[in-house]
Amino acid sequence: MASDAEIRAMRRAIGLAARGLATVLPNPVVGCVLLDPDGGVVAEGWHEQAGGPHAEVAALRVAGDRARGTTAVVTLEPCNHIGRTGPCSEALIEAGVRRVVIAVPDPSDAAAGGAERLRRAGVDVEVGVLGVEAEQGLEPGEGNEVWLTAVRRQRPFVTWKFAATLDGRVAAQDGTSQWITSVQARGDVHRLRAQVDTMLVGVGTVLADDPLLTVRDAEGIPLTRQPLRVVADTHERTPADARIRGGDAPTWIATAAEVGVTAAEHPALDLAALMRQLFARERRHVLLEGGPRLAGAMVEAGLVDRVVAYLAPALLGAGPNALIDAGITTIADVWRLELLDVRQVGDDVRVLARPRVG
Amino acid sequence: MASDAEIRAMRRAIGLAARGLATVLPNPVVGCVLLDPDGGVVAEGWHEQAGGPHAEVAALRVAGDRARGTTAVVTLEPCNHIGRTGPCSEALIEAGVRRVVIAVPDPSDAAAGGAERLRRAGVDVEVGVLGVEAEQGLEPGEGNEVWLTAVRRQRPFVTWKFAATLDGRVAAQDGTSQWITSVQARGDVHRLRAQVDTMLVGVGTVLADDPLLTVRDAEGIPLTRQPLRVVADTHERTPADARIRGGDAPTWIATAAEVGVTAAEHPALDLAALMRQLFARERRHVLLEGGPRLAGAMVEAGLVDRVVAYLAPALLGAGPNALIDAGITTIADVWRLELLDVRQVGDDVRVLARPRVG
Ligand SMILES: NC(=O)c1ccc[n+]([C@@H]2O[C@H](COP(=O)([O-])OP(=O)(O)OC[C@H]3O[C@@H](n4cnc5c(N)ncnc54)[C@H](OP(=O)(O)O)[C@@H]3O)[C@@H](O)[C@H]2O)c1
Ligand SMILES: NC(=O)c1ccc[n+]([C@@H]2O[C@H](COP(=O)([O-])OP(=O)(O)OC[C@H]3O[C@@H](n4cnc5c(N)ncnc54)[C@H](OP(=O)(O)O)[C@@H]3O)[C@@H](O)[C@H]2O)c1
Ligand SMILES: [Zn+2]
Ligand SMILES: [Zn+2]
Repeated sequence: MASDAEIRAMRRAIGLAARGLATVLPNPVVGCVLLDPDGGVVAEGWHEQAGGPHAEVAALRVAGDRARGTTAVVTLEPCNHIGRTGPCSEALIEAGVRRVVIAVPDPSDAAAGGAERLRRAGVDVEVGVLGVEAEQGLEPGEGNEVWLTAVRRQRPFVTWKFAATLDGRVAAQDGTSQWITSVQARGDVHRLRAQVDTMLVGVGTVLADDPLLTVRDAEGIPLTRQPLRVVADTHERTPADARIRGGDAPTWIATAAEVGVTAAEHPALDLAALMRQLFARERRHVLLEGGPRLAGAMVEAGLVDRVVAYLAPALLGAGPNALIDAGITTIADVWRLELLDVRQVGDDVRVLARPRVG
Repeated sequence: MASDAEIRAMRRAIGLAARGLATVLPNPVVGCVLLDPDGGVVAEGWHEQAGGPHAEVAALRVAGDRARGTTAVVTLEPCNHIGRTGPCSEALIEAGVRRVVIAVPDPSDAAAGGAERLRRAGVDVEVGVLGVEAEQGLEPGEGNEVWLTAVRRQRPFVTWKFAATLDGRVAAQDGTSQWITSVQARGDVHRLRAQVDTMLVGVGTVLADDPLLTVRDAEGIPLTRQPLRVVADTHERTPADARIRGGDAPTWIATAAEVGVTAAEHPALDLAALMRQLFARERRHVLLEGGPRLAGAMVEAGLVDRVVAYLAPALLGAGPNALIDAGITTIADVWRLELLDVRQVGDDVRVLARPRVG
């Protein structure tokens, strides 16, 4: 049984982990707190960025000799592989840590086994303390869910973002759409982009809007890299001078030749294969920014893990819908979501939701 | 200048007024607090229902002789006409009230002049104290806005309610729609219905859904009458056995013969004329429950004063939209609303908004 001090420390560690959200990919967010036998905090650490020290190592460095005899409270099972920084399970053993309290076991083949290794070395190990909080975050969307889901499904976590009017339109009848949402909502989108490693759009959006899809205006967010920009573009219709091909970010025009097509009546780019290829390229979080047709295909393929809707208090009564052709024809098959968060962002309503399980 | 005690009393009076919301129509909601010279509360009253005593009279009755020398704090200018209960301005003078503090002047021709009459009788009168709060309510939608707007525009206040998925669909592709929103949201709609005197739908909704449109399940809401059910039905297509014709509520099938048509290329029922006729029938608050086509025509005609959207965390990707044919073709003409309230109702998101002025 975890003590009150350990539970408090786990909550703190989950908060620390979230500081890495915009920088750790393709790694998990992890936080670690070292406690002395009286429950006092000896040291803290979190995983700041891929290539940098793991949370446990960061905390051990701060603690130095004072690590001996402490309890390590850590949001993810300490790794067991020789990665860029050596296995954390080994480091904890060497530092003389007495007990390790873990929120979530590591689902990856490469890194798992850390708890077992610690136990074999005589360390007291407890797993599952505030596991839900560590996965979901103290604030909605701020946990380790993205990485955990990606590793479990062997494909990137997919967040679908759209901006629409209250009547679900993403553009007016004549195709004009700038700006449906407020400047605050657009700033919020840039913060979202700063947290992913991949942007995905359909070629229809490229042809209609010629977007740049880089991260800008993400105030206060450390920007270590631009996400990879991917266009789902079966027949390579992306123009040679499309803005998405330029700029300071990498681009992948994903075509049938590279990705393959589904064996349907009207073959389309195989989105599941696209996701597998992105995972193989170490991509863990895709932000799907439309358009409606690609979003429909992603929903139909079961490839959307989170929905972020920015709804402007405005009405159009005509124009393209936020989602089309998701393969749903009757109300019994409606795609029901679980509401995670509803709030006002600037003049708009932001709804955060995820598919209902089961 | 109103004293602190008077401002506190006005806030209280606005709260008292709101108790009449579900019962006063076609009258305004009004609250009244009598204060002694030290700012102590002598008596309170509010207008409970049409035909019953006005707020001032209710408070004066409670006060009896103690009304002499008090200040009456009242949310609407005391009436000056001989209504069902005699003019309140007269009653205040007779009771020896020394000063009257008013939130909002009375915009109606018949009842206005109360402040002037009080002044001529030597009563000290101040107008405009917490006027915005009295009109808008302490909670969004709980002020005297409905009645004030109706009287100013000489047509009923129109609340348009719709229930849709996050992508703006009110039904699936095959027309099925039961139930998009949660049981809590549907209960909320019945509370809304209990606050209006008129329900309006297009004949399309009658043909598709055969709704009853009566108030049920409005727990805790005193139900003194069922709203009038109106069908906008140019060519009287409402079936003889439609449920809306039966039940325990009155019904008006509004046809071209009675209401007239607009002089457009494709003549449609003249909705502005329909509203004027409803006002002449003492109707002050219409709840427009769709469908999308009639809502579009009402929006285009500038006849929507409030929007209540219930958005289910669900996606369809096909099916009829919440609003069609509102006459908007380009984003510059988007109908922008002001967000009044966003909250979760059951599993759904409820958005309360109104047209931006100017
Ligand atoms: N407000 C917003 O949030 C938002 C965001 C984005 C876009 N938009 C609007 O959306 C509109 C564009 O919508 P859209 O639907 O034409 O564009 P889209 O969804 O971006 O692109 C659709 C295209 O993607 C390609 N695609 C590749 N693989 C696919 C698959 N497996 N299934 C389906 N499609 C696949 C198809 O073209 P190929 O067959 O040639 O590959 C398809 O025509 C524009 O008006 C834009 O302004 C709005
Ligand atoms: N989820 C919701 O909140 C909700 C609410 C209601 C309905 N619905 C759905 O909406 C669908 C029905 O939609 P709808 O658009 O066909 O029905 P509607 O808007 O209820 O009715 C449209 C009809 O109203 C008549 N109308 C009369 N005066 C008009 C005017 N000035 N302008 C325009 N129309 C006028 C027209 O028929 P005439 O020319 O013959 O008069 C028109 O065809 C159904 O699927 C229903 O389930 C959903
Ligand atoms: Zn590690
Ligand atoms: Zn009166």
